[in-house]
Amino acid sequence: MDVRDASGSAGSSATGGRARLLVSCADRPGIVAAVSRFLFEHGANILDADQHSSDPHGGGTFSMRMAFELPPAGGGLPGLAAAFERDVAVPFAMRWRLADAWKRKRIAVLVSKVDHCLLELLWRRRAGDFEDDIVMVISNHDALRSVVEPFGVPFHHVAIGSEGKAAQEAQVLERLEGAADVIVLARYMQILSPAFVARYRERIINIHHSFLPAFSGGRPYQRAYERGVKLIGATAHYVTDALDEGPIIEQDVVRVTHRQSVRVLQRMGREIERTVLARAVALHLEDRILVHGNKTVVFV
Amino acid sequence: MDVRDASGSAGSSATGGRARLLVSCADRPGIVAAVSRFLFEHGANILDADQHSSDPHGGGTFSMRMAFELPPAGGGLPGLAAAFERDVAVPFAMRWRLADAWKRKRIAVLVSKVDHCLLELLWRRRAGDFEDDIVMVISNHDALRSVVEPFGVPFHHVAIGSEGKAAQEAQVLERLEGAADVIVLARYMQILSPAFVARYRERIINIHHSFLPAFSGGRPYQRAYERGVKLIGATAHYVTDALDEGPIIEQDVVRVTHRQSVRVLQRMGREIERTVLARAVALHLEDRILVHGNKTVVFV
Amino acid sequence: MDVRDASGSAGSSATGGRARLLVSCADRPGIVAAVSRFLFEHGANILDADQHSSDPHGGGTFSMRMAFELPPAGGGLPGLAAAFERDVAVPFAMRWRLADAWKRKRIAVLVSKVDHCLLELLWRRRAGDFEDDIVMVISNHDALRSVVEPFGVPFHHVAIGSEGKAAQEAQVLERLEGAADVIVLARYMQILSPAFVARYRERIINIHHSFLPAFSGGRPYQRAYERGVKLIGATAHYVTDALDEGPIIEQDVVRVTHRQSVRVLQRMGREIERTVLARAVALHLEDRILVHGNKTVVFV
Amino acid sequence: MDVRDASGSAGSSATGGRARLLVSCADRPGIVAAVSRFLFEHGANILDADQHSSDPHGGGTFSMRMAFELPPAGGGLPGLAAAFERDVAVPFAMRWRLADAWKRKRIAVLVSKVDHCLLELLWRRRAGDFEDDIVMVISNHDALRSVVEPFGVPFHHVAIGSEGKAAQEAQVLERLEGAADVIVLARYMQILSPAFVARYRERIINIHHSFLPAFSGGRPYQRAYERGVKLIGATAHYVTDALDEGPIIEQDVVRVTHRQSVRVLQRMGREIERTVLARAVALHLEDRILVHGNKTVVFV
Repeated sequence: MDVRDASGSAGSSATGGRARLLVSCADRPGIVAAVSRFLFEHGANILDADQHSSDPHGGGTFSMRMAFELPPAGGGLPGLAAAFERDVAVPFAMRWRLADAWKRKRIAVLVSKVDHCLLELLWRRRAGDFEDDIVMVISNHDALRSVVEPFGVPFHHVAIGSEGKAAQEAQVLERLEGAADVIVLARYMQILSPAFVARYRERIINIHHSFLPAFSGGRPYQRAYERGVKLIGATAHYVTDALDEGPIIEQDVVRVTHRQSVRVLQRMGREIERTVLARAVALHLEDRILVHGNKTVVFV
Repeated sequence: MDVRDASGSAGSSATGGRARLLVSCADRPGIVAAVSRFLFEHGANILDADQHSSDPHGGGTFSMRMAFELPPAGGGLPGLAAAFERDVAVPFAMRWRLADAWKRKRIAVLVSKVDHCLLELLWRRRAGDFEDDIVMVISNHDALRSVVEPFGVPFHHVAIGSEGKAAQEAQVLERLEGAADVIVLARYMQILSPAFVARYRERIINIHHSFLPAFSGGRPYQRAYERGVKLIGATAHYVTDALDEGPIIEQDVVRVTHRQSVRVLQRMGREIERTVLARAVALHLEDRILVHGNKTVVFV
Repeated sequence: MDVRDASGSAGSSATGGRARLLVSCADRPGIVAAVSRFLFEHGANILDADQHSSDPHGGGTFSMRMAFELPPAGGGLPGLAAAFERDVAVPFAMRWRLADAWKRKRIAVLVSKVDHCLLELLWRRRAGDFEDDIVMVISNHDALRSVVEPFGVPFHHVAIGSEGKAAQEAQVLERLEGAADVIVLARYMQILSPAFVARYRERIINIHHSFLPAFSGGRPYQRAYERGVKLIGATAHYVTDALDEGPIIEQDVVRVTHRQSVRVLQRMGREIERTVLARAVALHLEDRILVHGNKTVVFV
Repeated sequence: MDVRDASGSAGSSATGGRARLLVSCADRPGIVAAVSRFLFEHGANILDADQHSSDPHGGGTFSMRMAFELPPAGGGLPGLAAAFERDVAVPFAMRWRLADAWKRKRIAVLVSKVDHCLLELLWRRRAGDFEDDIVMVISNHDALRSVVEPFGVPFHHVAIGSEGKAAQEAQVLERLEGAADVIVLARYMQILSPAFVARYRERIINIHHSFLPAFSGGRPYQRAYERGVKLIGATAHYVTDALDEGPIIEQDVVRVTHRQSVRVLQRMGREIERTVLARAVALHLEDRILVHGNKTVVFV
């Protein structure tokens, strides 16, 4: 059992509720039947179900998301989680998690000086587009304090001081500990340590630009301009130790021509970055993403 | 039970097989559990499952598609269909159909004089993109015979003669009877009678142009040009008695500017029409579409 | 000569400057040569030029946009405008305008209670994406005051009181007079009178949702959901007396499936509306739009 | 003067005609005026003009495309070309070419065994979408002869025999010499020698798949599948000695999800490849592309 998520969510609703069950295991006959019978017998009404087998001809990985409602009576999600572990997850050797849909996830946004991705998230929160809540913004600079505070979200300036980056990261982790469920790097220009990444595995979302062909190294928009690319894009992914190469959550592109200057390409890049990041965050908040190795299964 | 589809497909595979089950009924708890348990107990291995409730809060319509494999032993699809009717469909008051995935659907294409949609379908057939087969092309003109015959597909010229349209339609129906499972109107410029439409309900696919705003009446590209629209599109739908207003299967658009002449808009319109029609046909062939009233649920 | 624009802009730069010349007239040989020679002889360096003939085979309308820089010496834009009128515009019977690119257009935003389009404009202004300035927000409700004021933009509540709509519109016009160059209806739920529209012809931009097929009347998202459309979109246009049918500036769509609830469709509709409106406003601000009858030529 | 293009096209129309002039040179004031005055004085009527400066603030490269009609009287295109060289091109140190729009370009398609791109080109030729003509198909295999010949296009099998690749390429060049104006590599799986590329500089168009991130090496669709990319695409470019890295003409992408198998991704890849290649070929045929270094300016 994926203790992290269950402990984070299953304990929150004593009676009744709405939840999302995410499951993956080696594919074999009977999984859907076992899970759906289990839920039915516990009084759950399945609202939405989606499944996928990576190789229906055998040897594949089975993935499933089921959203359901629980009746007020019964043991609630904690009881359901315990029973599911015993009756279904262990027999099928499942990796799984159960998320309480009524529990708002606590989002921490990490930023540096650039505000377009941050603003998109704050705006969507205010528009009620997210089910969940942005509980803090942390930055290694103080520049964006005046942007954040009018939205009523706490802003923490955690500078990189004379004690170095490791000390700063430790302070960031301290702020996050027990206070955040998901971390969004909204153009945070610091590389997280492997320990940080391990602490929040599959819960740190990053955004970066994407080009065809890829331009590694500096000044990518300048190089995309010089190369005359016809598309520029952005990729949102979970952070792993391989920089910018974690499991892809969402990607999109926008068409450009030779007419756009580097400055305009950068502006268009900001637009596509904020759109793609906001979509990726929403998918995560709605528990629509399963990670297998370096690949996501996104149930939309 | 939807006898049409079951009779068309369930009888074809005496032992083992691969099939797709499509179900819709009033939503209530236990449907997924009942269907998946049924399939499991009959030895089926679910390859892909997708479900949707039009209103998860009650009173909605539940829709589901399950693709599965049957073991060689057992009664095959006909036996499964009979058992499903008795054990699941009747208790849940389901509308359902069971399609043999190994049985190739027989496609009849109806055309007039314009060939772009027809060619796209013939080309995709030759490329092996369709699982199924185009068994005939019928036209009220002889113009496209030389286009069709090199592909090795029979071409039938059924002219509208002195006996009138009804007589011609009767001849077309005669050609189709027992020989075609799905009818694609690839720019067929005749209106089908209500009796024809009823005979092939939810099995006749049409394509037409789409504009924002809509331009009813003649010369739509000329009018779209004059209006300076920035998008032109196409809509593929099932044919009903309400002309061009049946359940939408697929839509797409392409961007245009003031630079495109009417002639170029028409060329771009042809491109988007053939793409959208080919996608819609593929969705139908793979049994991915359920129709509720005037709306489709498309499981992709 | 289009006095409005020339008076609004040509007088602002006594020496040197950057400008955009927009021209339309009956097509005939020599127009490009005459305009470009005129500009060259006045020391202008053409930065960007774009032209279009609605019918290159004769009888069409010629449109052109030229962006250029003027040297510091010389009469500046007012002198250039007078000479152009005499030497080029009159001989070719041109409709034209000359816009000072260094003069920031003053934008007034009219809103009611819904804030997504308003916020997008305010955010883009803060991000520096617009060259120009939002100088006021006017609303027939007081609801959005707290949204607007943190951006440092004046908010005017002009209620529809007992004196009726005409009186309110008169007050709005009074606020605008001499203070605004372009008016953006960011979900302003009042119909403007013909007199208002005439006063700001081709300078009032509106946004509305777009569907294929169109759904006139109320509750369009509900009806789009019921119809199972696969695309929802938005159209930005100049306001004319024909409600929602003025010249189209920009359109775009986003794909949807049966899975999106009416509420999610509405959220997606808000996103596409704000994107399309912001693009349309930017095109107007950069003097990229010519209107011919009920059609735009957009030079991008 | 770019002798290649002028000799290929300017000699074809003794009296009157329609032509496209493409020009690039160091940016400076007066270029548009000089070219448009020249055309006007030679009786040309400009149908379409488009220009671009890579850096309007100085030091940039100026690019222009002008499409125009010539009156029946006068020296026709050869006379015009000679006068333009003397009066305009030399004074401005221009790189330029003049293409006769009424002269059909002769297209040679090189293929190996895969037919989807070839078929798209043949189909569009038959549909009348191209202004120009496919005069031959050359393949290092005989596999596609039966695909090509029904379209009435000569098919040449030029095998790589015991004499090796260089000998085969020499035979291909012999076929092309004097017979083809543009070469389309429609999934031709042989690398062209630098001498071949130099012989047809900016006249060989290639298509290849594109991914975000890029997957160099073999089995790219398998790797894209394993990586869970959300977009797959295609890039059409002019061939240079740097394999797959020549100036980009056109790019596009299509959205995919975890549901698409490798086989379906390949099918979708074929679709996007043929669309992008066909668009790139059309842009080339209409003389809409200028190449600066490793970048294109595409006037659409």
